[in-house]
Amino acid sequence: MKNLHTHTFNISCQDRERLNGHQGLVIWFTGLSGSGKSTLANALEIALFERGKHTFILDGDHVRQGLNRDLGFSETDRTENIRRIAEVSCLMADAGLIVITALISPFRREREMARQLVSNERFCEVYVDTPLALCETRDPKGLYKKARSGQLPNMTGISSPYEIPENPDIVVHTEYQSVEEGVQMLLKRIIQ
Amino acid sequence: MKNLHTHTFNISCQDRERLNGHQGLVIWFTGLSGSGKSTLANALEIALFERGKHTFILDGDHVRQGLNRDLGFSETDRTENIRRIAEVSCLMADAGLIVITALISPFRREREMARQLVSNERFCEVYVDTPLALCETRDPKGLYKKARSGQLPNMTGISSPYEIPENPDIVVHTEYQSVEEGVQMLLKRIIQ
Repeated sequence: MKNLHTHTFNISCQDRERLNGHQGLVIWFTGLSGSGKSTLANALEIALFERGKHTFILDGDHVRQGLNRDLGFSETDRTENIRRIAEVSCLMADAGLIVITALISPFRREREMARQLVSNERFCEVYVDTPLALCETRDPKGLYKKARSGQLPNMTGISSPYEIPENPDIVVHTEYQSVEEGVQMLLKRIIQ
Repeated sequence: MKNLHTHTFNISCQDRERLNGHQGLVIWFTGLSGSGKSTLANALEIALFERGKHTFILDGDHVRQGLNRDLGFSETDRTENIRRIAEVSCLMADAGLIVITALISPFRREREMARQLVSNERFCEVYVDTPLALCETRDPKGLYKKARSGQLPNMTGISSPYEIPENPDIVVHTEYQSVEEGVQMLLKRIIQ
């Protein structure tokens, strides 16, 4: 873009990573509403924090009350919601943090956009694979009930598709795995 | 907003601050183009980093190439540019970082908006007070020349106003103070 000149700053991402003792990363949870993304994100953050890692959770609902408060739920706005969160994740990973996102992010092209923005090396897609029927039983936000009664258009899994990840970096099956088991698996992959 | 439910996460801003050994803060530099914001931001970041602080610079031009790439330079877009950067600063301060922003941010109401979004306790407005004539002599980006020849509308200080801060937390006079002196003054106020 014309008239933009990027100033060179001395402290680099590598410097920050050295200070933190670990790489900046984006752990991108995707899955249906009620699949367990936020629960896993929270448990993973606790486990990382206990090991002295510098973390932050970008929760979809939280960001919609701040940065993305101007966005609705149209297709365009949902894409913009993902784009901004991916950009912020990228900035935070540059800051040396392990960023954990918890968003339905139902479309492959948007998750791919997020991976491209962040960079492949720093991006870890975690598919929280929980059957729709189980998510509906949990229904922690009462959204499935609303959607089934026709009060909620564009509900992922009901009136809007969820595109299953084809090559996720990690899959968590909450039907068979406990939260602790899921976290142990994630830790092994993330901090080796 | 309806249908948004904020999940409770266990690791708090206070936990992250404890891990980092310092408070999360936003150091908001404001001043004309060429006033020395980016130079001071860079020198301040180096000084903080050398003292083991966890920092990040949000540079206006850099963010316009990523998160805010959809925004132009109309009044509405400039306000939205500031709002998003303030929201991201707030998230990063929550993550325990000392965030340093380097934006002209010419309007009082926008700087006030940023302070409100971040919270008064975590926000430090630094006015880089450099006379327009000196900024024009420096003209690091060639923008004043363009503006004087009528090629650049909405150039702050020329064809668009800069509203001088009425109660900035800190003022740096680059006409009289060296970068090192400015940084020493800032350090005293920021990390006591």
